[in-house]
Amino acid sequence: MSDQRVVGALLFPGFELLDIFGPLEMFGVLPRHFRIVTLGEATGAVASAQGPQGVIERTLAYPGSIDVLLVPGGIGTRELARSPAVLEFLRRMQPKVEYLASICTGSGVLAASGVLDGRRATSNKMAFDWPRSVGPHVEWVAEARWVIDGNVVTAGGVAAGIDMALALIAQMLGDHVASEVARQTEYDWHRDANWDPFAKLAGLI
Amino acid sequence: MSDQRVVGALLFPGFELLDIFGPLEMFGVLPRHFRIVTLGEATGAVASAQGPQGVIERTLAYPGSIDVLLVPGGIGTRELARSPAVLEFLRRMQPKVEYLASICTGSGVLAASGVLDGRRATSNKMAFDWPRSVGPHVEWVAEARWVIDGNVVTAGGVAAGIDMALALIAQMLGDHVASEVARQTEYDWHRDANWDPFAKLAGLI
Repeated sequence: MSDQRVVGALLFPGFELLDIFGPLEMFGVLPRHFRIVTLGEATGAVASAQGPQGVIERTLAYPGSIDVLLVPGGIGTRELARSPAVLEFLRRMQPKVEYLASICTGSGVLAASGVLDGRRATSNKMAFDWPRSVGPHVEWVAEARWVIDGNVVTAGGVAAGIDMALALIAQMLGDHVASEVARQTEYDWHRDANWDPFAKLAGLI
Repeated sequence: MSDQRVVGALLFPGFELLDIFGPLEMFGVLPRHFRIVTLGEATGAVASAQGPQGVIERTLAYPGSIDVLLVPGGIGTRELARSPAVLEFLRRMQPKVEYLASICTGSGVLAASGVLDGRRATSNKMAFDWPRSVGPHVEWVAEARWVIDGNVVTAGGVAAGIDMALALIAQMLGDHVASEVARQTEYDWHRDANWDPFAKLAGLI
């Protein structure tokens, strides 16, 4: 691995805007350490769940070398979790990447691929039923901002992905680097993976 | 104004990812109340400061009706603040919109257009010098998460825009609606416009 890691962001119709662009901001303010590529089933513009479009640069068949692979949530995950090409891609990449990480209901796509079987994982607290139904062999953790199990990482809903991204930066480059990113982006980083008031608000605990 | 307001997002080369997609997430999870359109000098894909591209749907000459106009920061703001077409657009829109809001160094673009003259405003705490130099007739507030002066709103750096967006949603639709958006997106909303640990970290106070 060179000094610069490649962060791959999976985009698809109906992806959740902040799920992916929150973490990408955190990695992206460290261009010496991280380069971002967007990936998807076909190159070109793709509409988010909120409307604004992202742009897919590389297809799943030719993703290039990826060190950190991010799978956001969003209403489009239900369709994505039925795509054999996407599920095969995730199974193929998981042993090769440093981290495979989902945000929000992206966990349901990881679950559908099988890479979460036998692992601990979390998801969006307001939509916990769907990933649970897709991943009956996953040890679902309701109260967690994010969960790391081996090289597979799952975050809670939307904004939880920002905290997870900073935690991964801390693991890869040191706590001082992640702290500086949070300061630069004026983000109130929750450093504790167990901080999760939203599980209770959602009636999960 | 119909029940559904239009949120216009100004995009340009070198825009900061989270500056714009953080607020757009907050508005975007309320599709009954807000519809998002992206605006810029030319339609098509445009690269953010962090690499990933956004897509501009409408030009500044034909923006359509806009209720809330958002101007993000990012390294591209220095160039943007020298564009006569952009500055004229902001001057033309300010009296017509319900809110004209900047995030981070987007404040420098508002300052360059003159719409901040005689108003209170804030900006990114790590790059406070540039907007200050562009807006000598602005009453700059160093310690503030966001500042509302009339219909012109300015947020601090990057993540501050999310808190500002929720504050504007609270003003337009009620506090309970903004609280529900924060809960759905698992975002730890800072409701106090005076909450700002970053001014001190940056040595501004």
